[in-house]
Amino acid sequence: MENKFAKWGLKNQKEAKVTIREILEKMKKELKNDDERPMIHLGHGDPSAYSSFRTTPVAEEAVNGALRSAKFNGYAPAAGLPESRRAVAEFLSKDLPYNLSEEDIFITAGAAHAIELILTVLAQPGANILLPRPGYPSYEAHSSFVDLEVRHFDLFPEKDWEIDLDGVEALADVNTVAMVVINPGNPSGSVFTWEHLRKIAETAKRLGIVLISDEVYYDLVFGGNKFVPMGVFGSVTPVVSLGTMSKRWLVPGWRLGWIALSDPNGILEKSGITECIKNYRNISADSTTLIQGAIPEILEKTPKDFISNIVVLLREAADACCSQIMEIPFLYLPQKPQGAMSTMVKLNLDMLEGIEDDMDFCFKLAKEESVLILPGSVLGLKNWLRISFAADLASLEEGLHRIKAFCCRHSNMIM
Amino acid sequence: MENKFAKWGLKNQKEAKVTIREILEKMKKELKNDDERPMIHLGHGDPSAYSSFRTTPVAEEAVNGALRSAKFNGYAPAAGLPESRRAVAEFLSKDLPYNLSEEDIFITAGAAHAIELILTVLAQPGANILLPRPGYPSYEAHSSFVDLEVRHFDLFPEKDWEIDLDGVEALADVNTVAMVVINPGNPSGSVFTWEHLRKIAETAKRLGIVLISDEVYYDLVFGGNKFVPMGVFGSVTPVVSLGTMSKRWLVPGWRLGWIALSDPNGILEKSGITECIKNYRNISADSTTLIQGAIPEILEKTPKDFISNIVVLLREAADACCSQIMEIPFLYLPQKPQGAMSTMVKLNLDMLEGIEDDMDFCFKLAKEESVLILPGSVLGLKNWLRISFAADLASLEEGLHRIKAFCCRHSNMIM
Repeated sequence: MENKFAKWGLKNQKEAKVTIREILEKMKKELKNDDERPMIHLGHGDPSAYSSFRTTPVAEEAVNGALRSAKFNGYAPAAGLPESRRAVAEFLSKDLPYNLSEEDIFITAGAAHAIELILTVLAQPGANILLPRPGYPSYEAHSSFVDLEVRHFDLFPEKDWEIDLDGVEALADVNTVAMVVINPGNPSGSVFTWEHLRKIAETAKRLGIVLISDEVYYDLVFGGNKFVPMGVFGSVTPVVSLGTMSKRWLVPGWRLGWIALSDPNGILEKSGITECIKNYRNISADSTTLIQGAIPEILEKTPKDFISNIVVLLREAADACCSQIMEIPFLYLPQKPQGAMSTMVKLNLDMLEGIEDDMDFCFKLAKEESVLILPGSVLGLKNWLRISFAADLASLEEGLHRIKAFCCRHSNMIM
Repeated sequence: MENKFAKWGLKNQKEAKVTIREILEKMKKELKNDDERPMIHLGHGDPSAYSSFRTTPVAEEAVNGALRSAKFNGYAPAAGLPESRRAVAEFLSKDLPYNLSEEDIFITAGAAHAIELILTVLAQPGANILLPRPGYPSYEAHSSFVDLEVRHFDLFPEKDWEIDLDGVEALADVNTVAMVVINPGNPSGSVFTWEHLRKIAETAKRLGIVLISDEVYYDLVFGGNKFVPMGVFGSVTPVVSLGTMSKRWLVPGWRLGWIALSDPNGILEKSGITECIKNYRNISADSTTLIQGAIPEILEKTPKDFISNIVVLLREAADACCSQIMEIPFLYLPQKPQGAMSTMVKLNLDMLEGIEDDMDFCFKLAKEESVLILPGSVLGLKNWLRISFAADLASLEEGLHRIKAFCCRHSNMIM
């Protein structure tokens, strides 16, 4: 049997791209067992391990209620429970100039699954997709998997990480099917203005491509810019928004996401894309019915101060993170984050000795200091770092303290 | 934008195959709103709506405990939580001549997702897979999706639905990568003997193909044949077993399944298949961490009498179902089921008037009698029917009563 499979070289092995969790799992293996200090994880947008970032009792009660009712142990329809789709539609419609209906929502097993779904649907022989650099590598991994050619457009670090729209226009051709916008920004923590979003929508319209708006960090903003969902521009160009309970409710492990079609002119329907989503939804993995059953209650009853409290915590964490970063001369922070759970800093390699690049930096940091952060090259920006501030203040400060100590120890300067 | 997508014809639309839930959802639309009788669902293996088939309090408590602990709100590793993988390995090892380890188990979002995973990994240009007829259409749908050519081997209805192994040998060629065995049988309810399973394993070994054993109905047997997991023959040929909590714990909506590699000789590892599973697991959807967190307790503490009670209920249901079927002259039951949750009957179309085929039968039955059963053509056997007995006795009897009334009304004979 070995020979049989050897002859193919197994496609999936060849084409595997690096994902965030893969690199983090590898980094964890570097951690030394004899380090008495606890590992500090500033590598992912998941603060759920900290008690200050525990989800609302409303969410726990809703799941418990769904569990006790025994009504949500069975299979759900492919697109999701009607009441859950309706609840998500109502939740999103509050911030839109028109109402979404149940039919516009497809429940998924988290946002990563929503990415898989929409990219699989859009993949056609010869087609290409425009992705942001830096971005979120699940898009690259899935595009590669479904043979969708990836073309990267840049974000301007010094200009609130806004999209280089001229670059987008230059990259696109007749085979471009879609572009991806991540707002609030991952990895940068940027929050785009209404005006910038409008320009993005108009660019997508001009190019005749699907606008995929990754709104995983929906309304988790704490800077000057207000969050505007891309669906606001659904009448300019159809918008496929990806959302999730993961970040807003601090439960990424519950795996409940959605695709929302903001398309008042019915263009996605006419293009056959809606039908394709339905078809692929039929054979693709499902979100747990139990959590689906809890959504209506969670969306209806979550108190406003739960969300505003998270935003306060994130603002404090972001502030603390930035102040400490600015005290580390080896790191350059072009913009303070205005939302989401991470920020991007540039590594000043000239000042460091024995550190080859961002990847080397992160692996050595894990080994020597038991701190996990993400190398920018995984996100398309070599020699940058993504630092997540989704942690409690004590851990964050200790983590950055260790990063500073690490840099100083590897400095080639007389300090 | 419409023109852009029109030119491609959108791959997924073209290649979509019929799945069970798709056909059931279509059938549900046939139900008349003015039928005062409740709809009776004998179309799927999901009895969770009936109070007699409620899951064990142990499972509910375990999930509630995981929820209250707040330890399982975050991301899990791609392959699943280590403690959950270990618990599944221990659970399966009890019935094997060797021990599985944590590394042999990959947690999936239900068995359907396990099917997606293994077929995606095995798909290579030009490769083909051998599937049973009748079978479970998710295999056909996913194979088609990943461009894996499907070849069907027959099961012998009169011989306990055993596999036509000569047929398997005749179908296989140098490009055959795997064969699928479903035991306990879906749709037939058959339970293969140790001797038949051994012959299957030896056939797979001779052909040098991966043996995929769908054990979704693991040990849910109530006839003369004892359940033997295919992994028992792992030293003959490597076995990829697909399992789930769905049926044994009556919680298909919880979406917790697994792939178990029974391969004491390490052939899957050497062939690169294990690595490919890991890689694809990295980018594929996840099972809810919350349910994963509950597995160790569920597997350890579920009382034996919970499972034996389900088996008693299923035996009673199967007996009642068969007795009633045998009183309906329009239906032919070649074998009484010995396990799982459904049975196959042949439709005697010659005795019916105005019924075109099995599909027509099922849609008209839904419309006229509010009873859902599955047309055999969805499973590869035209003019057969799959009747699920995963229901309480009252509903089952009423359902079969309505099927009989329907047949009599459409009979071309003088009754």
